Amino acid sequence: MIKLDIHGQVPAIDTAVAKAKLDELKSSDMVGWLTLPTDYDQDEFARIKAAAQKINSDSKYLVCIGIGGSYLGHRAVIEALNKKSPTKILYAGNFLSPASFQQILDELGDADFSVNVISKSGTTTEPAVAFRIFKQKLIDKYGEKEAYQRIYATTDSSKGALHDEASANGYASFVVPDNIGGRYSVLTAVGLLPIAAAGVDIDQLMAGARAEQEADDESIYKYAALRAALFQKDYDLEVLASFEPRLFYFAEWWKQLYGESEGKNSQGIFPAATIYTTDLHSLGQYMQEGRRNIYETIINVTDESPLITVPALKENLDGLKYLENKSLAYINQNALRATVTAHSTSIPVVEITTEKIDEYHLGQLIYFFELSCAISAKLQGVDPFNQPGVEAYKNEMFRLLGKPN
Amino acid sequence: MIKLDIHGQVPAIDTAVAKAKLDELKSSDMVGWLTLPTDYDQDEFARIKAAAQKINSDSKYLVCIGIGGSYLGHRAVIEALNKKSPTKILYAGNFLSPASFQQILDELGDADFSVNVISKSGTTTEPAVAFRIFKQKLIDKYGEKEAYQRIYATTDSSKGALHDEASANGYASFVVPDNIGGRYSVLTAVGLLPIAAAGVDIDQLMAGARAEQEADDESIYKYAALRAALFQKDYDLEVLASFEPRLFYFAEWWKQLYGESEGKNSQGIFPAATIYTTDLHSLGQYMQEGRRNIYETIINVTDESPLITVPALKENLDGLKYLENKSLAYINQNALRATVTAHSTSIPVVEITTEKIDEYHLGQLIYFFELSCAISAKLQGVDPFNQPGVEAYKNEMFRLLGKPN
Repeated sequence: MIKLDIHGQVPAIDTAVAKAKLDELKSSDMVGWLTLPTDYDQDEFARIKAAAQKINSDSKYLVCIGIGGSYLGHRAVIEALNKKSPTKILYAGNFLSPASFQQILDELGDADFSVNVISKSGTTTEPAVAFRIFKQKLIDKYGEKEAYQRIYATTDSSKGALHDEASANGYASFVVPDNIGGRYSVLTAVGLLPIAAAGVDIDQLMAGARAEQEADDESIYKYAALRAALFQKDYDLEVLASFEPRLFYFAEWWKQLYGESEGKNSQGIFPAATIYTTDLHSLGQYMQEGRRNIYETIINVTDESPLITVPALKENLDGLKYLENKSLAYINQNALRATVTAHSTSIPVVEITTEKIDEYHLGQLIYFFELSCAISAKLQGVDPFNQPGVEAYKNEMFRLLGKPN
Repeated sequence: MIKLDIHGQVPAIDTAVAKAKLDELKSSDMVGWLTLPTDYDQDEFARIKAAAQKINSDSKYLVCIGIGGSYLGHRAVIEALNKKSPTKILYAGNFLSPASFQQILDELGDADFSVNVISKSGTTTEPAVAFRIFKQKLIDKYGEKEAYQRIYATTDSSKGALHDEASANGYASFVVPDNIGGRYSVLTAVGLLPIAAAGVDIDQLMAGARAEQEADDESIYKYAALRAALFQKDYDLEVLASFEPRLFYFAEWWKQLYGESEGKNSQGIFPAATIYTTDLHSLGQYMQEGRRNIYETIINVTDESPLITVPALKENLDGLKYLENKSLAYINQNALRATVTAHSTSIPVVEITTEKIDEYHLGQLIYFFELSCAISAKLQGVDPFNQPGVEAYKNEMFRLLGKPN
């Protein structure tokens, strides 16, 4: 269960209406993620763990190639947990900048590596381009046979370019399910293989998600209903804030989840993110005193480890004597409480509290935000599972690049 | 000169009114940055270079301690250029999370390091706490005498806690000018010392800014006037986009500059940022089809290096044959053109073109955005140089923490 508190002035909310949307959702054919934590492919799960072990045994780097939903979910988990692992994860196929590509090649150097290419179709431009380059590099380094044993393809179960290539070349393959869209796919093989290779306990991650699924958590409906009520009142900008820099990519994942699910038909709450306290000395000014179409959702992590304290000094030049021997966690927690108080005098503030940032609690948060998001989109009258607007730039790009057909 | 193009439907703009605001600005006592590129302290500049050389000769790491304007500017330049340097820059004092603090301590390990503490007063909580910890670490490692030779203080020229401590202990000291606020300070010692230590040519950085200052660039007024005109028409959300991941922190710097300068009196355009193409598969949906209170400013970098091409294959399973032997830069540039075309059918798109990301062109961009910002704020009727809203959380935090007085 996720603890959710509301601060400041907010409109009345109706969680019953939000709950009713769950039944509508269940009739969609894109809600495989809804029961995933209690109903996933155990055999594939075991194969993912085995593949991660092999990667850890023979690769200093795993180059994960994917974009959007085939990228943000695992990066969110991996960077939040920052586990020790023999294998470092590099992320490619999510940009086209040659300078950024070169940075990855420079870091890779001559080290042993494997590739996890993640693409339902295998034809999305960015990952397909990156896969050609890294496949070539693998073949140059290891020869074709070993190269193919170092390629892990996460793709459609039965069709498509990458599926066919994986079958022809014998890559280890994992499934992007038909009934789970990219931005809801972090707990499928899409996310789990890189996450496991990064040293994360994926059993615990699933256990956390399962607990949240089984709890039928009231907070899920409360968050969705509140968002819809705020949007009705012309709040069209939500800032997800945390006091933990390691949650940066978690916020990026959240931005895709909400922005792509809701931002259509000229509707939707624009999702932005801040990391405090750094951004209190930046966007904090706007949060306190800018336009009042904004509200804030703060993720409060109450865990106090590791213990780092303010050293005591003889003199008190910096005026910090009153903080001597206090822990950073204590000061951070008070900065959070102060921010909640200060901002909620001026804008609505939602506080989501989690005990710690570990596998279990991240699993909970993932499920919480996924289901809240789908319900929130439904309450706003849009389809949470399509993204028609993404085609516009793609079609124009294909035209400019002279793609056949 | 910065090339600025406007795409899509925009209101009429009046650059003459924007130009007139420059005279108003000049009468402010907070515009030292306006003439900084042609009028900076040459002696201090030379001392900065000498200090950077010493740091490069004796330190594997430089821990830069600062928050807000004492943090974002140099990080923006350092990460955009990613120069080889004997010294790696670490950033502290801009958060309170113990987990993030531990990550820095872990990376530092037993390596040689120096500290650059950047704080006008020396009493801002986050940097003051971090400085106590790292100062202690320096003393434990090197003894008091050498420790003090490894501390570089960038602070007020004549008063304040850090100034007094630096004088007492003989730290090398650099000046945070009285007439330049934090978010406009990147080209003072605040930014220049870390930037120089990171292997960046600060002469070229200043030369670019100087060129932009001396050009009296029409684009500066055009951008400011357009922003004001859009805000008048209820566009209250600007997204700064680029196709270069290395500009991520440049966008963070831009967000502080604009958000803190304008976000007051219940006014201001909320500044958000995206990195494409990754965010085209995330927030791209919202940009194309979400609420239409949004506009986009795209930084177009036309530089094509380094040359990385799509390998040719016998088969064409991925359908990429039409891109074989094409460069990533070519594909990236067409993705940008496609995005401009697709998004500008639906929202205003400003395109800012720069030849490359090097010292000179970054210097140009910094000056361009600083002056545009101050004028834009003036046009919106707010003071570009104060940040009264930041005090609210601070006062509450001091109360919670029991700060004396």
